[in-house]
Amino acid sequence: MQKKLEKYFDLLWPICRSLTGDGNRETLKILSEIVDLKISEIPSGQECFDWTVPDEWNVKDAWIKDSKGKKIIDFRKNNLHLLGYSEAFRGKLKLKELREHLYSIPEQPNVIPYLTSYYKPRWGFCISHKQMRKLREDDYEVCIDSVKDPEGSMTIAEAVLPGKSKKEILLSTYICHPSMANNELSGPLVTSFIYEKLKKKTERKFTYRFLFLPETIGTIYYLSVHGEELMKNLHAGFVVTCIGDRGNFTYKKSRRGDTPADRAAELVLNQTERKFIVEDFFPTGSDERQYCSPGFNLPVGSLMRTRYGKYKQYHTSADNRKFISFKKMEESVEKYIEIINTLENNGTYVNTLPYCEPQLGKRDLYPTLGSQKDTTEFVNSIMWVLNLSDGKNDTIEISRRSGIKFEIINEAAQKLFEKGLLKNSENEDGDDND
Amino acid sequence: MQKKLEKYFDLLWPICRSLTGDGNRETLKILSEIVDLKISEIPSGQECFDWTVPDEWNVKDAWIKDSKGKKIIDFRKNNLHLLGYSEAFRGKLKLKELREHLYSIPEQPNVIPYLTSYYKPRWGFCISHKQMRKLREDDYEVCIDSVKDPEGSMTIAEAVLPGKSKKEILLSTYICHPSMANNELSGPLVTSFIYEKLKKKTERKFTYRFLFLPETIGTIYYLSVHGEELMKNLHAGFVVTCIGDRGNFTYKKSRRGDTPADRAAELVLNQTERKFIVEDFFPTGSDERQYCSPGFNLPVGSLMRTRYGKYKQYHTSADNRKFISFKKMEESVEKYIEIINTLENNGTYVNTLPYCEPQLGKRDLYPTLGSQKDTTEFVNSIMWVLNLSDGKNDTIEISRRSGIKFEIINEAAQKLFEKGLLKNSENEDGDDND
Amino acid sequence: MQKKLEKYFDLLWPICRSLTGDGNRETLKILSEIVDLKISEIPSGQECFDWTVPDEWNVKDAWIKDSKGKKIIDFRKNNLHLLGYSEAFRGKLKLKELREHLYSIPEQPNVIPYLTSYYKPRWGFCISHKQMRKLREDDYEVCIDSVKDPEGSMTIAEAVLPGKSKKEILLSTYICHPSMANNELSGPLVTSFIYEKLKKKTERKFTYRFLFLPETIGTIYYLSVHGEELMKNLHAGFVVTCIGDRGNFTYKKSRRGDTPADRAAELVLNQTERKFIVEDFFPTGSDERQYCSPGFNLPVGSLMRTRYGKYKQYHTSADNRKFISFKKMEESVEKYIEIINTLENNGTYVNTLPYCEPQLGKRDLYPTLGSQKDTTEFVNSIMWVLNLSDGKNDTIEISRRSGIKFEIINEAAQKLFEKGLLKNSENEDGDDND
Repeated sequence: MQKKLEKYFDLLWPICRSLTGDGNRETLKILSEIVDLKISEIPSGQECFDWTVPDEWNVKDAWIKDSKGKKIIDFRKNNLHLLGYSEAFRGKLKLKELREHLYSIPEQPNVIPYLTSYYKPRWGFCISHKQMRKLREDDYEVCIDSVKDPEGSMTIAEAVLPGKSKKEILLSTYICHPSMANNELSGPLVTSFIYEKLKKKTERKFTYRFLFLPETIGTIYYLSVHGEELMKNLHAGFVVTCIGDRGNFTYKKSRRGDTPADRAAELVLNQTERKFIVEDFFPTGSDERQYCSPGFNLPVGSLMRTRYGKYKQYHTSADNRKFISFKKMEESVEKYIEIINTLENNGTYVNTLPYCEPQLGKRDLYPTLGSQKDTTEFVNSIMWVLNLSDGKNDTIEISRRSGIKFEIINEAAQKLFEKGLLKNSENEDGDDND
Repeated sequence: MQKKLEKYFDLLWPICRSLTGDGNRETLKILSEIVDLKISEIPSGQECFDWTVPDEWNVKDAWIKDSKGKKIIDFRKNNLHLLGYSEAFRGKLKLKELREHLYSIPEQPNVIPYLTSYYKPRWGFCISHKQMRKLREDDYEVCIDSVKDPEGSMTIAEAVLPGKSKKEILLSTYICHPSMANNELSGPLVTSFIYEKLKKKTERKFTYRFLFLPETIGTIYYLSVHGEELMKNLHAGFVVTCIGDRGNFTYKKSRRGDTPADRAAELVLNQTERKFIVEDFFPTGSDERQYCSPGFNLPVGSLMRTRYGKYKQYHTSADNRKFISFKKMEESVEKYIEIINTLENNGTYVNTLPYCEPQLGKRDLYPTLGSQKDTTEFVNSIMWVLNLSDGKNDTIEISRRSGIKFEIINEAAQKLFEKGLLKNSENEDGDDND
Repeated sequence: MQKKLEKYFDLLWPICRSLTGDGNRETLKILSEIVDLKISEIPSGQECFDWTVPDEWNVKDAWIKDSKGKKIIDFRKNNLHLLGYSEAFRGKLKLKELREHLYSIPEQPNVIPYLTSYYKPRWGFCISHKQMRKLREDDYEVCIDSVKDPEGSMTIAEAVLPGKSKKEILLSTYICHPSMANNELSGPLVTSFIYEKLKKKTERKFTYRFLFLPETIGTIYYLSVHGEELMKNLHAGFVVTCIGDRGNFTYKKSRRGDTPADRAAELVLNQTERKFIVEDFFPTGSDERQYCSPGFNLPVGSLMRTRYGKYKQYHTSADNRKFISFKKMEESVEKYIEIINTLENNGTYVNTLPYCEPQLGKRDLYPTLGSQKDTTEFVNSIMWVLNLSDGKNDTIEISRRSGIKFEIINEAAQKLFEKGLLKNSENEDGDDND
């Protein structure tokens, strides 16, 4: 998978993405090779809740030349150089005038910052502070050959893998970042490969929904149309972002904090990772801000590696190919799959012989030669599942309380179910939504 | 304020106070220069719940002379010398007989203890153990020129600062201690200056009630008459005691433990003090014993500095002017004001656009130039308030969960309210009483 | 008591016990000298829930001789040598054939393991691994002169000490272990001496039920007949096991975790022991597995010393007289008695003067000479009981919250009750079962 991740990373890297525009279309077209995407165009001007889909923005070229005609800043070399959603501009400026349109980070003099001005008309360039300091008095020529088209549209994409249940698991990522690696080519890439893996599964309990949206406005538009359905059907969801670097995993809980998404993610991290972080919800961040707005309050968390804002390369040109690891990205895909498998296999059962223990020996579930000195983990797991299966504890909870790995608890539950010692609880999918 | 605190301390210090008597009247008269006190006389013999207001006690003089006629103990030099509520007595005694009426603390040989015998007739003197040890065989002359008048009365005082709401905040202190400084001239002084500060406020949300009562019996009497009203109207209350020494703040929670009083005090201490103590309720102590008796169970806590019983000067002549600090006492007034302001500004709101985020940029509540690298505390606070304003969390809770200072959360809430993004919750004063 | 414990230990030690058989009858007959046991015989073949009472097993003799006729393994020397419930067998075997019927513990080469095969027909011997390694090629003669009688029965015993209430406290122990000391002669012995102590009490609030059962099948049988009554009447219960060694106390909570049994045991250990362990319920172990099966979910915990499975002598010949201490066993009896006394004395009261404090001085419950500098624990306890007696907190809870020893809290409650300041709550026995 690493080779393939690398190949698609390299294909997607140079493309200039934003809230709208041809770069996003091209990105989704490339991802369509992995994911069976249904791509939609939402017209600029479309209202959604408190927002309006912006004009479509495309850039042909953008540069600054000095008086000798030398291009000192060139959008084609690094698309972060152009302030996102810059107005078109053509003119000659003195250094002092130019400076008002230049952005740099004095504390990180070697990197180009990533900045946007989506909703207020502006033009500008982002440069390293090192370059900023070198600029001399001169007559500069500025060219921004960009278009904001009110007749344009915002491109979004979605894919669904149906399951036995109408209950859904959501994976949501965003496609509006230009050439940065962890934030955010890692998100769309990891999401695509999760899709690829899940598609191969012959049987899925849940229906899976994959969203590739421009951050914020894309998600707000999507929720304005599909929010009510999600409130009805969503079992668990995850925002996939910042998932390609070398750091330990970070799980940010949903606003509700104890949804199946949260409980499965925390269990898996606890049982498989030595170091990781679990954070309570906070209302800044990525698209969980929309999913977990108080009106929706959806069961959506976010599994990341090093969280946005927590690494200094964040939102700069230093968030590049060197900062990420394709090996780690593959492991991220696997970790998501583990969490998903936990949700798939999670069940709430009722012990059919709840008065005293059933005789396990005669059902080949207990050693017939007893010393009790060395009870195996499997026997332990059998006992835990029988004891806690009163219709109130799902197998995630049984695994958490017993400290026994979820796979073993799940295996025990399956065995007990086959032997008729468990039946499904009415609250069968362990869903505390409804 | 320090100068004024000092001036009033020096005026009040020499007065002999007790449950009743002219010393209490004089004390309240002096405090009337700061607080618009309504002073009442409750006749001795008045029954209140399980108790009876005691006879009025006044002392003209009290001393012990040796056989040479030298006054060796003199009430006029230190009013702690006389056992509180001593019966009148005149007579000559041998040392052995006298000893039965002398009290000292062997472990603290240099201090005079503070003792009372309110409800059992006794006479006695309190002296340092050093002096006790020096007493030689002699014929001692004893004079206690005191009166217990069944036709007398107990003096109590109250002041009210009206606010927009009938809901009240109570500040209760006690005036029954003779010449001791932290316990308890600091309480009446700090309470008076809180009054002075709040009186100047042009607008008060809550009505403020200030009580200057003899400890225990005064409070029991007050509650016997006004307890039911307080149960209806009290939003938060504080017993003001031991608030003038140099120690860190101690907050003793109300019996309920999670009232607005408790939540505001704990938040303010957390956000403004480096070292402080928060204690769960316990049923010994001061007048919170009555306010938090199980029948009333009022939302009354107590902000102190070093708590009664926790310093060795407590209830001795060493609790004097040197033990306290007028600077610290002023800071105590300010800390109470901070807590009160937190209660005044606390609000429970409902987000009017709860589905996804409102577009903050167009309302000047969000930077139009976005990098997200350096989200300001103000933007953070806006996000927290919007996300948690579902009618269930008040701004105290939002401040606690976000870790953002209450003033900033409050400012954010005000801005959002002005912009129409918040409305008042029906449970508008964040009161969990009703 | 130690001498008597020792005497009965020595009487019981050599007897071969199992799920059924004459050894169990003899054991119960000996214990009848201490406990007024009602002994019952449950016929083999009796069905109970998912189980069937097994055939009665008795052993006359069992040995292995080498070709020289020398007994190298002899059941009469140590009854652990014979695999529990071994089939009868007589024959000559080569070493290789014999080995399939020999059990040892390579990691503990000096001890004989304790093994059983209750429900699968087998024959076998348990030996030290040291002996195992010494066995040479030879013609061995094997004799197991045992009988499994389908016309036999399982012997169980029960004793009841009636109390004022129909609510019961259960002490359950097991009598199915052959010659091992901590697990499990300590359980029946400690249980018997608890009986002896409680019988002497002139007044008992609760009814006490003592069960001496074969582990698992005995308890399952008992619950199949009496389970419903226990669900109605059981206030608290304890499985008495592994209670004679020198280790600190371990309390394993009931499945519910907050029953009177759990709260009393945890309080007593907290207030009387320096080092102890409190464990949450887990569904392996002893008869609490049946009492706490999800259908019954009874308030049954277990006070042990070193818990089963936690010491290396467990289920081997090294769990012998040297491993235990009669002094510790006596202390175990006393600790159970302390917990039982806590349950007996626990009460939920209502303060009859809940508005402010009652005047304690006039009732001789408060010093009339007040300094408050040295409030006694008794006065403290009076205040705690009055303040928390609102019908919601029992005296166990008041002791826990105040940190004051239960006896003192109880004494305070009794005093207050006598003075009419407390009355019984309707929920008078502090029982959260019903």
